Amino acid sequence: KKILVIPGDGIGQEVTTWGQKVLTAVAANYHHQFTFEEGIMGHVAIEATGDPLPEETLQKAKNSDAILFGAIGHAKYDNDPTLKVRPEQGLLKIRKELGLYANLRPIKLFDELLEASSIKPEILRGSDILFFRELTGDVYFGEKKRTEDRNTASDLMIYHRYEVERIARKAYEAARTRRKKLCSVDKANVLEASRLWREVMQEIAKEYPDVETEHMFIDNAAMQLIKDPKRFDVVVTGNLFGDILTDEASQIAGSMGMLASASVGDTVGFYEPIHGSAHDIAGKGIANPLASILSAALMLDISFGLKTESQRVIKAVEATLRQGYRTMDIANKHTENEFIMGTDAMG
Amino acid sequence: KKILVIPGDGIGQEVTTWGQKVLTAVAANYHHQFTFEEGIMGHVAIEATGDPLPEETLQKAKNSDAILFGAIGHAKYDNDPTLKVRPEQGLLKIRKELGLYANLRPIKLFDELLEASSIKPEILRGSDILFFRELTGDVYFGEKKRTEDRNTASDLMIYHRYEVERIARKAYEAARTRRKKLCSVDKANVLEASRLWREVMQEIAKEYPDVETEHMFIDNAAMQLIKDPKRFDVVVTGNLFGDILTDEASQIAGSMGMLASASVGDTVGFYEPIHGSAHDIAGKGIANPLASILSAALMLDISFGLKTESQRVIKAVEATLRQGYRTMDIANKHTENEFIMGTDAMG
Ligand SMILES: CC(C)[C@H](C(=O)O)[C@@H](O)C(=O)O
Ligand SMILES: CC(C)[C@H](C(=O)O)[C@@H](O)C(=O)O
Repeated sequence: KKILVIPGDGIGQEVTTWGQKVLTAVAANYHHQFTFEEGIMGHVAIEATGDPLPEETLQKAKNSDAILFGAIGHAKYDNDPTLKVRPEQGLLKIRKELGLYANLRPIKLFDELLEASSIKPEILRGSDILFFRELTGDVYFGEKKRTEDRNTASDLMIYHRYEVERIARKAYEAARTRRKKLCSVDKANVLEASRLWREVMQEIAKEYPDVETEHMFIDNAAMQLIKDPKRFDVVVTGNLFGDILTDEASQIAGSMGMLASASVGDTVGFYEPIHGSAHDIAGKGIANPLASILSAALMLDISFGLKTESQRVIKAVEATLRQGYRTMDIANKHTENEFIMGTDAMG
Repeated sequence: KKILVIPGDGIGQEVTTWGQKVLTAVAANYHHQFTFEEGIMGHVAIEATGDPLPEETLQKAKNSDAILFGAIGHAKYDNDPTLKVRPEQGLLKIRKELGLYANLRPIKLFDELLEASSIKPEILRGSDILFFRELTGDVYFGEKKRTEDRNTASDLMIYHRYEVERIARKAYEAARTRRKKLCSVDKANVLEASRLWREVMQEIAKEYPDVETEHMFIDNAAMQLIKDPKRFDVVVTGNLFGDILTDEASQIAGSMGMLASASVGDTVGFYEPIHGSAHDIAGKGIANPLASILSAALMLDISFGLKTESQRVIKAVEATLRQGYRTMDIANKHTENEFIMGTDAMG
């Protein structure tokens, strides 16, 4: 299997090292052949080539069996909204070019981290949500405009029926293998794109009568997620709402540093932590490597069908947490018997 | 003072009764003259006239000194996204017609409700956030389109410089009277409308060097709000992001049933709970009347400049909570000595 590693920016560099090490260890232990290549993207790619997604990286991506990605972004661009070439364009372009329309974000709390969250343990215990975020449509990819006087700016929030249908089916198929509940999130009381979304969801729902369907407005969902996370099983939503809800949901898993994701679609799978480049802690060796390691576990399962190996990685993460190893983000200030470690020790 | 009461739909009917009663009591106790008129809007208005905002209601609104609004919406429209005439159009139209561009949503936890939230008390204690949600622009009001084959739908997310400037100034002025911290929330790494938003915010920030400005992406903000609500003082954001964040923030105040809001702009002020029409509990007499009562308190303060009277209402709410009265939504299942009451008793 050919795996392309794209560390990207900031802590992406550190954490993908650990995702890759775990894949190497799995290959050795289970006698698989994984070969690794590296590609650049984001700020580092702009610095090196002027292009956030160099053609070379894209070609490598298309020729690989799976991609392990780190993170993207840099304060330079965040502080200057007028810059034309931006790191995020690289990520958006690769998602589009590879047809990665379904972004799976499992939110599951490791029992060991029950106390790490700002939410009460009794609210969290047993939470297990699988998000399906649509990843190649919505206001992310609709036409962007700026008037010549620069005083008016717009982005088109747009959905096509087929885009909603295919992510709906993926989400329903997953719901069938789980607790058979699906919640579709939109803002159909205000947005036309959401009304199309809801219409299509209602149609596809008929194909899955064994799954219980619920429709929820995004504002309500943002509240319910914190109020009662256990009520959710599979959640399916658009690109923008999915971006917001899954970051928020990180508090259910204790920390953003725990969240892995898988982007799939037409061909190759793309695996990445949900967390960003976090330049404030980059290079200090304190970033949590578990999101990258868990992304590698998703790769083993989804792209390679190696369920045993994937479970083995998850068990190893559990064991590490049980032994008390913690990076800062998941450390519980109320317990004594824990080792707060750098990225290396956690990895 | 002429006050227009628009109960709207669902529990809007019940809760505005209590907002109005409190205003009547204030008038009697402090020797003010408040006269009340009533107007229809939303589903009830569609049923009666076919129009979610009848011209008569709009005229009454324009001729009033302040408006007390309840809630809007009905499951009939939520379940059928193809319906052309919808209750929410009434609310959006009145916001636009009255120029209510600034929606103030104070999120403050009453000490008595420290245990009512799903968030840990030690995370919540001392939280005090004032949201400024832009209310007459963004994807709410940009052009909506549906192709003739009905397979593609879009909404234009659009901002003009002057819209950002005026809400920015309102938010900064408020920050000056508080802890002098302002957080502007956008998605400038992806959206052009957000890049304009951030550019303008950076400019206006220069006029307020005494206020500390921070820019945050919406996904990160959705997380930080739950992880560490105390880090926020004034938050300013667009219409859509404001809708999502303030509903989410309800968990900081213990319940949606506690959250009041004030919409202000060019002329008359508009006061409404953040909660919706909640048809599932409508007519049962169990809706929390405090959001409407606290909205009345905001009216006294902001539209009429009656600070003492406004404080008196807030103190009365506090006293009621201290005595242990609770509606279902804020009841703490772990304490015995509380009376779970219907709307009437709480009012
Ligand atoms: C970096 C950014 C463009 C990206 C997004 O908004 O999709 C990130 O927040 C994510 O969730 O993957
Ligand atoms: C009812 C709906 C149109 C409205 C909105 O989205 O603005 C509501 O959610 C609110 O927050 O006032």
